[in-house]
Amino acid sequence: MSQADRSGTAVLPMPDLSSTFPGPFPASPHADHIEQHVGQWLRRFPLLGPPDGLRTLCNIVGQGVARTFPTADPDSLSLCADLFLWLTAFDDVHGETRAADDLTQLVRRVGEFVHLLADGEPPGDADPFGAALQDLLERLRSRATPAQYLRVTGCLRDTLFGILWEAHHLPVADRVTVRDYLAIRPHTVFVRTLMATAEIALRYELPEETRNAGAVRQLESALADLAGLMNDLGSYARESAQGGPQSLNLIALIMNQRNCDLATAFAEASRMGEERAAIVRARITELTDGGTGLLAGHALAMESIACSYVWHIEHARYAID
Amino acid sequence: MSQADRSGTAVLPMPDLSSTFPGPFPASPHADHIEQHVGQWLRRFPLLGPPDGLRTLCNIVGQGVARTFPTADPDSLSLCADLFLWLTAFDDVHGETRAADDLTQLVRRVGEFVHLLADGEPPGDADPFGAALQDLLERLRSRATPAQYLRVTGCLRDTLFGILWEAHHLPVADRVTVRDYLAIRPHTVFVRTLMATAEIALRYELPEETRNAGAVRQLESALADLAGLMNDLGSYARESAQGGPQSLNLIALIMNQRNCDLATAFAEASRMGEERAAIVRARITELTDGGTGLLAGHALAMESIACSYVWHIEHARYAID
Repeated sequence: MSQADRSGTAVLPMPDLSSTFPGPFPASPHADHIEQHVGQWLRRFPLLGPPDGLRTLCNIVGQGVARTFPTADPDSLSLCADLFLWLTAFDDVHGETRAADDLTQLVRRVGEFVHLLADGEPPGDADPFGAALQDLLERLRSRATPAQYLRVTGCLRDTLFGILWEAHHLPVADRVTVRDYLAIRPHTVFVRTLMATAEIALRYELPEETRNAGAVRQLESALADLAGLMNDLGSYARESAQGGPQSLNLIALIMNQRNCDLATAFAEASRMGEERAAIVRARITELTDGGTGLLAGHALAMESIACSYVWHIEHARYAID
Repeated sequence: MSQADRSGTAVLPMPDLSSTFPGPFPASPHADHIEQHVGQWLRRFPLLGPPDGLRTLCNIVGQGVARTFPTADPDSLSLCADLFLWLTAFDDVHGETRAADDLTQLVRRVGEFVHLLADGEPPGDADPFGAALQDLLERLRSRATPAQYLRVTGCLRDTLFGILWEAHHLPVADRVTVRDYLAIRPHTVFVRTLMATAEIALRYELPEETRNAGAVRQLESALADLAGLMNDLGSYARESAQGGPQSLNLIALIMNQRNCDLATAFAEASRMGEERAAIVRARITELTDGGTGLLAGHALAMESIACSYVWHIEHARYAID
């Protein structure tokens, strides 16, 4: 493991991914354009107030998506960036601690989105989040096959449920097991949604038998875990410095469940990250071995998603304010 | 409107559907076989304790599904009946008042199902509800196209969310508007799930442009409302006689919102039912006019779903105990 030594943070053992995801990671040549685009989209749909963090958010989302799908066309990148921004903004504004304080209000907001995801008639009086979701769903529908659209809208439902799950469990965090948390985490870190958008952004569609092949399932499952682990490791120090984690975090759950100290829990989570990264790398190697077809393309799409999560936690959004 | 005069109930104006859905409604010749099958399936997956109502439940589900899809093959009917039974049993055991008392526990249970719906690895220690859902999903997957499977699993997510929505709003029923309730009701009455299973059970698949045609959307939307209205009208008297409604009910919401008496609210809901039934009938007539193709077949499937909801509320499950 490598040692993190960010300002204000104790030296904690971050996962060593130098052999599995060494970087630097390729980025789309449209990265700066996408970053500008998300800023414009946020002016059209003002999901967030005017905090200092807005520029940082546009930067991480724009530059991040440019690393998630480096070969995608600009329209696809814009769509993915707007979708990721919408999820991030909703979680920031309505999720976590604020949500736990008024669960019924959160359920009501999610209900509006479920109505749209279920093809209900759009209301005439949608607020910016509702209006922005309508825009996203129209653009997704125009680019996706029926199955692709249904897959990504299923993932969006799961993410919204994950935000609900987290809000309900935040006040009883001591009763949340590591196993339960790992099962929900891929949804709250949005990685399953990104996996589903890959086929839309990169314009391919896996046949069902390929999607259900053991190696593909193992790759996706390990990647889903890896994304959450990287995010939890990266955000733990930041949230601790801000007065304690505002959301459930694997590190705290390990400390609670194993009755161990921070360094031990951090090391355990880092080891889990290294283990999942090794599985992701092994399955990518296997699926791309000599092949250039659909399966190899899918494996490379999953690789770049992994890279983007590794890249994310080095970003200033995860720095301690 | 016709006058209901069931024992113990004040004479209340039920919708007059004698011109739109006059009955009697065709039933599958396999009806009794399906009723026996669901009893066997419940022994394999004991979702419910051994109450007196078990036989009544198997009867309404078996005979009901035989009227929902009268021309379907026995395997499809068994699958639809088991699915409807699972939803009904989960709502009875974990939804409504019990859920409002422990929202976190309900969210936890739903999280287990979301994991399966999102293609997560099945846990080794699933309880009867989890094991039964695995069985249902395997059977659905083996019969459905990818898009059909994704559509029905999307509906199942929406129904589970609807149960959550209801549990959160039950303690604040006076703040629920008729409009909000009508938006969520199609999910909690399972009618959207039944619509999605029609294509699997009857082995057809609508092209997207057909699915999005105005007449099809109007038919489905009116049918979705009609199912909820019939269920609420039928169950209001039963739940009132048992000491007050255990779930949100349109009649009570109308009384609250319009500040009117029971008879007036009942009449208003009945009028809404008649209006929706007229729309359903008009769109079916339009879509089947001289046609025998996909669109006419879909319209007839929607017709038999409407018939099954009209049939349901005459069943003993809705009689006053």
